[in-house]
Amino acid sequence: MLQFSDIQLAYERINSVVNKTPLLSSRTFNQLSGNQVWFKAENFQRIGAFKFRGAYNKISSLTEVERARGVIAHSSGNHAQGVALASKLFGIKAVIVMPHDSVKSKVEATKGYGAEVVFCGTSTDDRERTTEELIRSHGYTLIHPYNDEQLIAGQGTLVLEIAQKLHELDYLFVPVGGGGLISGCAVAAKHLFPNIKVIGVETEGANDCYQTFREKRIVKLEKATTIADGMRTLSVGQLNFEIIMKHVDDVITIKDEDIYPMMKFFLERMKILVEPTGAVASAAIMKNIKELSGKKICAVISGGNVDASFIKQVL
Amino acid sequence: MLQFSDIQLAYERINSVVNKTPLLSSRTFNQLSGNQVWFKAENFQRIGAFKFRGAYNKISSLTEVERARGVIAHSSGNHAQGVALASKLFGIKAVIVMPHDSVKSKVEATKGYGAEVVFCGTSTDDRERTTEELIRSHGYTLIHPYNDEQLIAGQGTLVLEIAQKLHELDYLFVPVGGGGLISGCAVAAKHLFPNIKVIGVETEGANDCYQTFREKRIVKLEKATTIADGMRTLSVGQLNFEIIMKHVDDVITIKDEDIYPMMKFFLERMKILVEPTGAVASAAIMKNIKELSGKKICAVISGGNVDASFIKQVL
Repeated sequence: MLQFSDIQLAYERINSVVNKTPLLSSRTFNQLSGNQVWFKAENFQRIGAFKFRGAYNKISSLTEVERARGVIAHSSGNHAQGVALASKLFGIKAVIVMPHDSVKSKVEATKGYGAEVVFCGTSTDDRERTTEELIRSHGYTLIHPYNDEQLIAGQGTLVLEIAQKLHELDYLFVPVGGGGLISGCAVAAKHLFPNIKVIGVETEGANDCYQTFREKRIVKLEKATTIADGMRTLSVGQLNFEIIMKHVDDVITIKDEDIYPMMKFFLERMKILVEPTGAVASAAIMKNIKELSGKKICAVISGGNVDASFIKQVL
Repeated sequence: MLQFSDIQLAYERINSVVNKTPLLSSRTFNQLSGNQVWFKAENFQRIGAFKFRGAYNKISSLTEVERARGVIAHSSGNHAQGVALASKLFGIKAVIVMPHDSVKSKVEATKGYGAEVVFCGTSTDDRERTTEELIRSHGYTLIHPYNDEQLIAGQGTLVLEIAQKLHELDYLFVPVGGGGLISGCAVAAKHLFPNIKVIGVETEGANDCYQTFREKRIVKLEKATTIADGMRTLSVGQLNFEIIMKHVDDVITIKDEDIYPMMKFFLERMKILVEPTGAVASAAIMKNIKELSGKKICAVISGGNVDASFIKQVL
C-alpha cells in the first residue's frame, strides 16, 4: 500500500513545476460556520485543478521507452488537461479519450496543451473500451485517472503544502470522485497530523463511495447524476478503496442544490471561481453535515474549470 | 507633501487588520504580454478593495473626540465600504452619502457593515452638498475618498507588501480615479524601487488625469462615462495632483471595451473575480499601450466588487 514516503518522493519530482496554491480563509465563512476554516485552493493549480500533480508524477515515474511511445488517458475533464500539460512539459505524445458531452472549455483546453482528443460514448465502459483499443494498436501507457499508486502519490502532495503553513488541523474535507485525491490526501494527512479526521464528501446522485464506505466493499453505481462533473465516476478503484477503508474516517453526502450557494459565496465574497466538484467539500462544511463547532478544518477546493454558461446559471 | 515615512507609519497602524493580499501571476498572460507581470490582488482585501487601507489609517489618525462624533463619507462604492468597515472596527458611527444609482451589491455591503446610508443625486456636487449639510448639523468628520494625506498614506501601503516579495520592478501600473491610490503608490514605489516608472491608467471616458498630466493643471471633466465605476470622479484632488506631477511618469488610457476581455481572462484563466476598474491597469498591459517587452511589471488590481448581472454581461 502507498506510504507517506511515496508522497514525499512525488513532491521532490513535481515541486519545481507545480503552483504552490494558496490557503485561503474568509472571516464571514468562519462566522457562518462556527469553525476556523481554510481552503486549499487547487483552482489556482496549473490547468486549474489538482489533477496536474498526479499526472506529472505518474509520467515522471515512467521509463524513457514508455515515454517515447506516448501516454493515453480517459477523462471527463481535468485529468485530461493534467495529462496533456504534463506530457507537453515532457515533450511526449498524449492521447485523451473523452465522452462527446464533455464540458467544452475542458475539451478546448486539452487540445490547447497539444494533446490529441478522441471522442467516445458517455459510459465508463465506452471510454475504457476505446482506450484499450488504442493501447493495443499503439502501445501507449495508460495514465489511469485514479486507480494508480504514482498518481495517488502526486495528488497527496497538496497536503504537504498545507502542513507547511498549518501546524494543527482537526479535520480535512475532500471531494470524492474516483478516489485518487482523497486516498493520496488521507495517507499524507494521517502522517502529518496524527489526530486529524479525514472526511470524504460526495453528492447524493454520485454516492458510490458513501455506500462503499458503509458496506466495506466497492459499490458500483449504475449511473451517477450530479452537476459535479468530476464526481460522475461510478465507483472508486481498488487501490483507492484499500486506502479509504484504512485512512478515511467518514464519507458524507450533500445535495446538488447545496453547491450553487457555495459557488456563489466563493465568487461574490471570496472573489474566486470554483467548479461544482471543487465546491462540494466546502458546501458540506457550510451545511454543517458533521455538526462541528470550534474546529480547525481544511477543505480542498479541487478545481476551478467551469464553462461561462454554468457560471451564469449559478448567478 | 506626503513622505515615505508617512506610509511606513500608516502600515504600522493598519498592519494587524489588513489582509496581506497575494501577488498573482499567469504563465499565459506573461506569454501574451511578452513581459513578466505580477498582479497585486486587492480584490482579496477586506471589503473586496484597497479602499479599506486608507479609510482605516485615516480613522486611526483622528482624535478620540472626532471619533466619538462619528465620520461621514461620500462614495460611489468601495470607499463607502472601507469607511463602514473601519468605523465598525473602531466602534464608531459612520454615515455614507451615496448616489441613488450606486451598484446594488456595494450599497448592501455598506449597510451590512453597520453604516447609515443617505442617498443623493448622481453628480459630484450633489454628493458634496448633501455631505456638507450633514457635517454642519452633526459635527461628523469627513473621510474624503482621495484628497487626504492620511488616506493616501494608507493606500500606499500596498506597495510595501509588493516590496516584501519582489526586489526588482521596472514598472508599476495603477488605475486612476480620484488619484488617492496612485499618489500613495507612487510615493512608496519611488522610494522602494528607485528606478521604477509609475504609470497611471484611465478609461477614455474618464480621462481627466490623462489631460491633467499633460496640461500640468487640474482638468475637471463635465461628465465621466465609463463602465469602470471607480473612475467616474471628474478630477483628481489637489494633494493627489501635486504628488502625481512629481512622482508619476505617465498617464495613459484604454477603451471601455478593453476591460471585458481582461475581466474574462481573470475569471476563466486565473479564477479570480475583478471589477471593471480593477482590470484597467492590467488591460493596459495586455493591450501593450506602452509598447514594453521583457520588463518586470506589477499591475494593481484595485478591487473585485461586481454585481452578478455585470459578471453575466462579461461572459
